[in-house]
Amino acid sequence: MEYQTQDDGFLIKSQSGLWERYEKFKAEKLKLDMSRGKPCPEQLDLAKGLITCLGEDDFLANDGTDCRNYGGVDGIKEARELLAPILGADPREVIVSGNSSLALMYDLIVRALVIGVPGGSLPWGKQPKVKFLCPSPGYDRHFAICNRLGIEMITIELEETGPNMDQVERLVAEDESIKGIWCVPKYSNPTGITFSDEVVDRFAKMKTKAPDFRIFWDNAYAVHHLAEQPDHLKNILNACKEAGNPERVFLFSSTSKISFAGAGLSIMAASEINIDWIKKQIIIQTIGPDKLNQLSHVRFFRDFAGIEAQMKKHATILKPKFDQVLETFELELGGKKIAEWTKPNGGYFISLNTLDGCAKKVVALAAEAGVVLTSAGATYPYGNDPFDRNIRIAPSFPPLGELKKAMEIVAVCIQLASVDKLLGE
Amino acid sequence: MEYQTQDDGFLIKSQSGLWERYEKFKAEKLKLDMSRGKPCPEQLDLAKGLITCLGEDDFLANDGTDCRNYGGVDGIKEARELLAPILGADPREVIVSGNSSLALMYDLIVRALVIGVPGGSLPWGKQPKVKFLCPSPGYDRHFAICNRLGIEMITIELEETGPNMDQVERLVAEDESIKGIWCVPKYSNPTGITFSDEVVDRFAKMKTKAPDFRIFWDNAYAVHHLAEQPDHLKNILNACKEAGNPERVFLFSSTSKISFAGAGLSIMAASEINIDWIKKQIIIQTIGPDKLNQLSHVRFFRDFAGIEAQMKKHATILKPKFDQVLETFELELGGKKIAEWTKPNGGYFISLNTLDGCAKKVVALAAEAGVVLTSAGATYPYGNDPFDRNIRIAPSFPPLGELKKAMEIVAVCIQLASVDKLLGE
Repeated sequence: MEYQTQDDGFLIKSQSGLWERYEKFKAEKLKLDMSRGKPCPEQLDLAKGLITCLGEDDFLANDGTDCRNYGGVDGIKEARELLAPILGADPREVIVSGNSSLALMYDLIVRALVIGVPGGSLPWGKQPKVKFLCPSPGYDRHFAICNRLGIEMITIELEETGPNMDQVERLVAEDESIKGIWCVPKYSNPTGITFSDEVVDRFAKMKTKAPDFRIFWDNAYAVHHLAEQPDHLKNILNACKEAGNPERVFLFSSTSKISFAGAGLSIMAASEINIDWIKKQIIIQTIGPDKLNQLSHVRFFRDFAGIEAQMKKHATILKPKFDQVLETFELELGGKKIAEWTKPNGGYFISLNTLDGCAKKVVALAAEAGVVLTSAGATYPYGNDPFDRNIRIAPSFPPLGELKKAMEIVAVCIQLASVDKLLGE
Repeated sequence: MEYQTQDDGFLIKSQSGLWERYEKFKAEKLKLDMSRGKPCPEQLDLAKGLITCLGEDDFLANDGTDCRNYGGVDGIKEARELLAPILGADPREVIVSGNSSLALMYDLIVRALVIGVPGGSLPWGKQPKVKFLCPSPGYDRHFAICNRLGIEMITIELEETGPNMDQVERLVAEDESIKGIWCVPKYSNPTGITFSDEVVDRFAKMKTKAPDFRIFWDNAYAVHHLAEQPDHLKNILNACKEAGNPERVFLFSSTSKISFAGAGLSIMAASEINIDWIKKQIIIQTIGPDKLNQLSHVRFFRDFAGIEAQMKKHATILKPKFDQVLETFELELGGKKIAEWTKPNGGYFISLNTLDGCAKKVVALAAEAGVVLTSAGATYPYGNDPFDRNIRIAPSFPPLGELKKAMEIVAVCIQLASVDKLLGE
């Protein structure tokens, strides 16, 4: 029944019933943290063998490199071969690094600020202003990097097929201070959409006023399917090459949600010119990444088929959790027209929009009842959701039973905040 | 017999004998790389157990943290407790990170450039000029960081007891653009000296014009003793606190030469104010370090006594190599007054000074005969040894037999270059 079309009497009656339910939940003194897209212990157990797959004397890479010793700034060859298909790149266009792809992105932006990037005449930081386009809702940690490093963020609407490319094309064509754009192109964080081929092509072809513009293509969920029919994402590295802009894109991914969230491998890809340049910079920062962990990953997964098989196992754990959230939302909120939510084919999040102006209230109410959600606004630059409506739901970590209760609580909070709004309170 | 006091006839005769030896070595077509301070395979074997010490189900830290998952930006508590004694700090003043202490230093300088440090009013990079003092001979990778990041380097004389503190005190007192100094305070790279208590105290007490000045105290060889009576280094963190300058020093070390050079742990220490600030910055760059590798180190070494016992084993491998180099030098060069070399009580290097103007020639001659040494000049800022005399010898990697031959070759090259010089050729 649609809340909007009901009279105040009905709403007030609903309200008291909702408060009753809310107080009951509160009395249970729950403590559920759903703020981050963390894998659950059962998912981590899938890669248990990674801890023990190397023997004491298994430390040599194929080319004879002692993985225990210094060196190898771009990672061992077999690790690059194992992971390059995730980004659709040639192993020569790939660097495999430590446990954090966020660090790869952060370091690259810092380097661009202090040193510059190929094609630029000055370090970004020596130019009057640096701006990034931020398709939103998006990933809060991307925005936090810009915020910390003094990069001005411009919010771009994220639609069903990707960022609003009319906006993007217009802005990058006219403003030389726009140096980059953040993208999570597949099973986007948090909306779950995948960029269309047309969007990828427009990215590859668009004219940018800044010669040192870069796309930060964080393909974090490249192989993280939930549906039988996975989404398809066009290869942007090839598209950029074909469009004559081979240096335009930096691609990133990691095994954080394939092997271990805190002890996996990060990977980046780019044109050989970019990669050669990055390697020359990285060698000033470090003598090389942890190659033993790279060797473990090679031994454990063997090849890309091994990774795909692992992702199927992840899906059998994750899919019921996503289904649980969607069912609870449908049951509690379906037909009431007070919330919309995504039904993603992969990735780690469900994105929910409340009525305008309700998200902060919902998150606060849920927190009071023991359910910690990602802060309202976190999915927008500067933590500022202009509509105060977007909430990111991270179903992966809690056990199914807890998840059901948490989603009931969230649904009650949404209804409470909506009724308040409709009653003008 | 002193070369300097011989007449040309003697020298010319020696020269032909030396060339003969040199050509014989060259005919052997050796390939010996002594350019870096790399542990040898036998040293790495000492930590073999690190690869297998975790079982599949051994991933929980004492506080219940799942080391496989995200989080813990300063490292797990037991790893901080294990490694804090290396830097003489309290575990609360310590961050344990990934496999590279060089990256900790580089990242900290980059952050100071882009964001600033506590006590400063502007990021270093927004100030007109940034300079670092570089006691030399010193560590080439420190100098490479400054060079890459556009930081002007000022060479400071490194003496038997540490940097020339008269020079240091005068410069930091008068020049606000001097923001830092590089120090390898114990078993210094490459000269092997350890800073005296007086030098540490003068560092702690000196007046700096820049309020955001920092000492980069790279205590890479803190526990890397070769002699029965190890050198003593005064605790600079405490000295700075006592002098009322608690924020002045950043300390660094790693287990690269304790466990695995490429897959160890890095560690930094500083005042709690500095550490809190750094953690707030790091969390923007990464969600956390590889905690599984930290747990392995805790399981393998158990405690600081375990680390000290491990270092005794390293010394039994390294000491004969250092002795081999020293013996060969004594035999080939002793009494000739054409070279001086250090006899360190620990660390990874022997530093050799040729007659002025001979180092480049020696390194080139040795390379032609198949022995790759660290580039001449590398131990000075901008690769520029003003006397062209310093050569860094890294005895750790080659097997004893090869090392002997390599040192004979180097000694012959030194004699050749010296005779050439004395003959005015």
